[in-house]
Amino acid sequence: MSLNDDEWFTEADEKGGTAFGLRIHGCLHREHSPYQEIAVYDTTGFGRLLVIDGYIMLSDRDNFIYHEMMAHPALFTHAAPRRVVVIGGGDCGSLGEVLKHQGVESVIQIDIDERVTRVAEEYFPDLAAGAKDSRARLLFEDGIAWMRAAPAASADVIIVDSTDPVGPAEGLFNAGFYAQCSRVLGAGGILVHQSESPLLHLPLLCAMRKAMREGGFDALATLGFPQPVYPSGWWSATLARKGARLEGFREAAAERKSFPTRYYTAAVHRAARALPPFVTEAFDEC
Amino acid sequence: MSLNDDEWFTEADEKGGTAFGLRIHGCLHREHSPYQEIAVYDTTGFGRLLVIDGYIMLSDRDNFIYHEMMAHPALFTHAAPRRVVVIGGGDCGSLGEVLKHQGVESVIQIDIDERVTRVAEEYFPDLAAGAKDSRARLLFEDGIAWMRAAPAASADVIIVDSTDPVGPAEGLFNAGFYAQCSRVLGAGGILVHQSESPLLHLPLLCAMRKAMREGGFDALATLGFPQPVYPSGWWSATLARKGARLEGFREAAAERKSFPTRYYTAAVHRAARALPPFVTEAFDEC
Repeated sequence: MSLNDDEWFTEADEKGGTAFGLRIHGCLHREHSPYQEIAVYDTTGFGRLLVIDGYIMLSDRDNFIYHEMMAHPALFTHAAPRRVVVIGGGDCGSLGEVLKHQGVESVIQIDIDERVTRVAEEYFPDLAAGAKDSRARLLFEDGIAWMRAAPAASADVIIVDSTDPVGPAEGLFNAGFYAQCSRVLGAGGILVHQSESPLLHLPLLCAMRKAMREGGFDALATLGFPQPVYPSGWWSATLARKGARLEGFREAAAERKSFPTRYYTAAVHRAARALPPFVTEAFDEC
Repeated sequence: MSLNDDEWFTEADEKGGTAFGLRIHGCLHREHSPYQEIAVYDTTGFGRLLVIDGYIMLSDRDNFIYHEMMAHPALFTHAAPRRVVVIGGGDCGSLGEVLKHQGVESVIQIDIDERVTRVAEEYFPDLAAGAKDSRARLLFEDGIAWMRAAPAASADVIIVDSTDPVGPAEGLFNAGFYAQCSRVLGAGGILVHQSESPLLHLPLLCAMRKAMREGGFDALATLGFPQPVYPSGWWSATLARKGARLEGFREAAAERKSFPTRYYTAAVHRAARALPPFVTEAFDEC
């Protein structure tokens, strides 16, 4: 059946040959920022939907999975995360999860497009609530340039909550950027970057892991999780650390965490590490 | 964007408000069997696609995940599975995975629609290869009636590889059918039924678990896994056993299994058990 554009928002990948649609009541907001087109739709089953340049960023209904998995595995892997940097993430969803950790003293978020944050504050106020936290500092500038200028060993965890590697985010997926992250991370520091679909984007995932190694990260761990509004409904995040291994995490702390989550638990964290053979075999070859 | 029906096969759930599409070169086959409309499309990125009554059943590219997860967790949980029954599963994908277990002596597959199997043999020959195995017996009749007539304690594992609970499969999702499965299973016998999307169909999943309990199964375990061509891309299977607990499985046997898999491993099996809080909390309440 064909989908009427008045009743459905549809994101189609002509090259990959997949499409995903959500039924809508209508469009609540659309603007052209200096960097991209930002739109918000009111869906019938997924709450509000944030779309950038035609790509689905998040929905009310399922963004908790992505944001919890971008924040908590990295923060429960670092021994004592106090200083966190978020590159991208203008909707403030990952920021909000990071701020749930009481030990975190400062989060600097650098998103090139202030309009994403302002739109999130208006249409996704719960998601963007972290922007008002006194520990959060929001900068609207180029994350690549910011990282290049940041002092060495000044962060414990860097979260790269970027769009896909086309457009503004392209420069975040290479060894040069990862090398700067490596320099900015202190001893035992953790980088985490969203790493696309294990089914659809395996060559890209392999290239990211290779670039992370070239950027100075010796230990890598890719975690899988569902994300129904992203292509294939199956997504991943890749953690990286210099020097130390990435086998374990602070399981006891994760078990007795003081804040609620809807997707993340210590058991879910362990489980997300178990990748299927078709993925691990591809990693072994790249 | 709207999707042209000549270039895309699209499955839309008007009520749930989600749609999934695959780009196609064209339709290879379409027929009306006595029970349903069966179609096969040639997609640009997912190989061949089997569609029944407008619902995607499987694609060449990702069916291995579903079929491995329908077969191996159940077979590695039973102490020594020899006699297996598959209800539905006419494409023979689950059958093929079951037959990889050398200890399995017989598999009876009961699908109401012979045409599904014949179409699978023609368009998905690798998937349907198990139909020729001397241990397999294919019956084309009503699975509910078959189960009612089957001798007590005559099966070790029952796999219900059904379509959604509308149309022919509706009668497979209730306590009456599960009670018959319970009667037909021997001591320590395992039932497994595909149990829809943890995100989209949680009330149905709860109802299935309740019906399984009413049908005489004391121990239940729901396992999650990706299935990109199904709604939300996130799917589940629910295992059930009479009397005994369902905490463990034959991990050593799974670790040293003699056959290849692309998704299933002992670690993936353990991981699939780790459900997120929003799911487990719903289970606790139902």
